[in-house]
Formats: sequence, C-alpha cells, structure tokens
Amino acid sequence: MATTRERIITATAELFRRQGYNGTSLKQVTVAAGAPFGSLYHGFPGGKEELAEVVIEASGAAYRELFEVIADAAPDAVTAVGDFFDGAALVLEETDYVDACPIGTVALEVASTNDRLRRATERVFASWLEAATVRLRAAGVAPGEADDLALVLVAAIEGGFMLSRAARSPEPMRAAGRQVRRLVAASIAAAPVAAAPGTGT
Amino acid sequence: MATTRERIITATAELFRRQGYNGTSLKQVTVAAGAPFGSLYHGFPGGKEELAEVVIEASGAAYRELFEVIADAAPDAVTAVGDFFDGAALVLEETDYVDACPIGTVALEVASTNDRLRRATERVFASWLEAATVRLRAAGVAPGEADDLALVLVAAIEGGFMLSRAARSPEPMRAAGRQVRRLVAASIAAAPVAAAPGTGT
Repeated sequence: MATTRERIITATAELFRRQGYNGTSLKQVTVAAGAPFGSLYHGFPGGKEELAEVVIEASGAAYRELFEVIADAAPDAVTAVGDFFDGAALVLEETDYVDACPIGTVALEVASTNDRLRRATERVFASWLEAATVRLRAAGVAPGEADDLALVLVAAIEGGFMLSRAARSPEPMRAAGRQVRRLVAASIAAAPVAAAPGTGT
Repeated sequence: MATTRERIITATAELFRRQGYNGTSLKQVTVAAGAPFGSLYHGFPGGKEELAEVVIEASGAAYRELFEVIADAAPDAVTAVGDFFDGAALVLEETDYVDACPIGTVALEVASTNDRLRRATERVFASWLEAATVRLRAAGVAPGEADDLALVLVAAIEGGFMLSRAARSPEPMRAAGRQVRRLVAASIAAAPVAAAPGTGT
C-alpha cells in the first residue's frame, strides 16, 4: 500500500510527464494523489519546488533502474540499446504518447529559470550517462568514446521522445534507436581488444 | 524598423526559449515587446494560443533557414553537420545557455495538452526533417537511410540542447555532433554511387 508521500510523488511525476512543471498546479497534485492539501505541505514544506526536486530525483532513479534491467536482460550492448529505444517507442504508442521521459519537459522549462531544479536534472542526466558509460566500457568501447556514445544515446532518446510525441508516431524513436545501435556496434567492432563473451552487456 | 507585430513575435520567441509556453504570460510579452496590450489582442485575436502558433511557425522557418545557410557554406554534408552542432554549442555558451531550439520546450509542453500547438510543432519538425533529408540525399545517402539519419540528426540536436542546458556545458551538443557526423560519413562512404563533387552539401 503506497504511503501518502509515495502517492504524491507518483501523481506529480505523471503530471510533469504530461504537462510539465509550469503547467502543473499543487491543486492538481492533491486531486490526482487523493491527498489533502495539508498532507502535501506537511510532506513538502518547501512547496512545489521541493516536491519537484524530489520527483526529479525519484523519476531519474526509476528510469536508470529501467535502463539497468533492460541492459541486464539483453545478450549484448548493441541489443540492449535497440531494446531500450524500441521499448520507449512501444510505451509511447500504448500510452497515447504521454508516457515519455519523466524529466525531459521539466529539464527544458527550468534550465534558465530555476537553478535548484536545473541542478537536479543535471544530476539525473549525469547518473544516466554514467550508467550508459559503464555498460559501453564493459562492452569494450574505449573510455573517451564511451563518454561520447553515452551522450549521444541519452540525447537521442530525449530528442526521440520530443519528435515522436510531436508527430504521434513511434518512428522517430525507432530511427534514433537504429542509428545509435549502429554507432555502438561500430565502436565495439573497432575496439582494440574485444570484451570477453558474457561481459558485453 | 520592426513592426509592432514583428516585435511581439520576436519577444515571444525569446520568452518561449527561456521559459517555455506555460511559463510565459501575455503581460510579459507586452513588456518585452514594448507593445500595448491592445495591440497584442488586435494582432492576435485568438490570444496566447494564436500567438504561440504564429511564433512556432516563424521560429521553425527561421531555424530551417539557418540550417540551409550553414549547409550552403560548408564544403560537404559531413562538415555541415559538424558546423551545425558546433555552432549550436557555441551559441549556448555565448548566451548563458538560453539561446537554444526555439520550439523544443514548447513542443514537450503542448504534446499532450494542446493539439493545435502540437500540430504546429509537428509541421516544423517535418520541415526540418525534409531539409536534412534533401541534403543527405544530395550527398549520396540512400532514401530510407537519409530519412533515418535526418531523424537522428534532429533528435540529437534537441537532446543536445536539453543536456547542454541542464549541465551548462557545450560538451553534450559537441559529442552529439561528433557522433552524428560519424553516422553521416559512414552512410556517404557506403553509398552505392558517390555524388558528384559540388552536390555533396
């Protein structure tokens, strides 16, 4: 049974995904969470900004966990990349293009307007980049190149969400996945020493 | 001398870039444009939504023009891709990470909340994808692959803006540019018939 705090965080994350930070009111959060206003201010005395910071961190951690689960389940890093993009495309289709990156909209809204929340999104992206870099290096990609590939991987996912949602089509996300797969495959093929089988994910 | 209408459009585009659609009030627009409230409603009787649609279309056309100018000035398509990402990275640095894609923030905010504006962003992205596809095909890339590359190019730019603004660093945009360059170079090298010199941009 979710606590009131958990329900508030989950409801806020869903509202941010659909309509962003500025488009979401605390009134909507209380209605969606089925929580009285008092419990919201009791749990988050810093108000909307504090709630948003907690939601960005929680959503970022959940999304990183999803990435790790997909990577663990895949036979190799190239397949993992394809599975991640194709999975995101499928979820978009199945949720009427609502269920996208939990922090992307907020990240753009706050980048120049709220430094506390900007830094929260920066930490989340850094965490995802680290997760991707670890996997790429384990697959045999050289360190500097792994950093580059991780950046384009996360950038292409975020841009894929934007283009797929705008066009209401899974194709941009799928195309981005195909091309990032191609980059990862080429980098692994060009790696000076191939990773041993079983360490490639 | 810019007309009042032009000043309103330019001011709104700048506000959307910095703080998005929901974070921008018509009051702010009138102040930034130095235009009386009456002129705003006279020029845009449909209010904020109508103004936003006009701004999305105007910003999209201007950004496409920028892409064409950069592509025309570059000796080949691979250089053009690098110039476009590196130019975006430089502008981000020079503008304190404010001057990013004019429609990215709005596109995410409206994707699930305002279908008229979502369709406006869809048209803009389609226009950019067409521009990129035409250049890639002229450089010898096969049609289907050119569509894929155009999608990942635009997705990587949008994601590059997001990651660079969040981290206040040009590096994500530059890394995305390096990797998209690499894809375009590989596709051109693998093209069955190389384009004649001079048609490669």
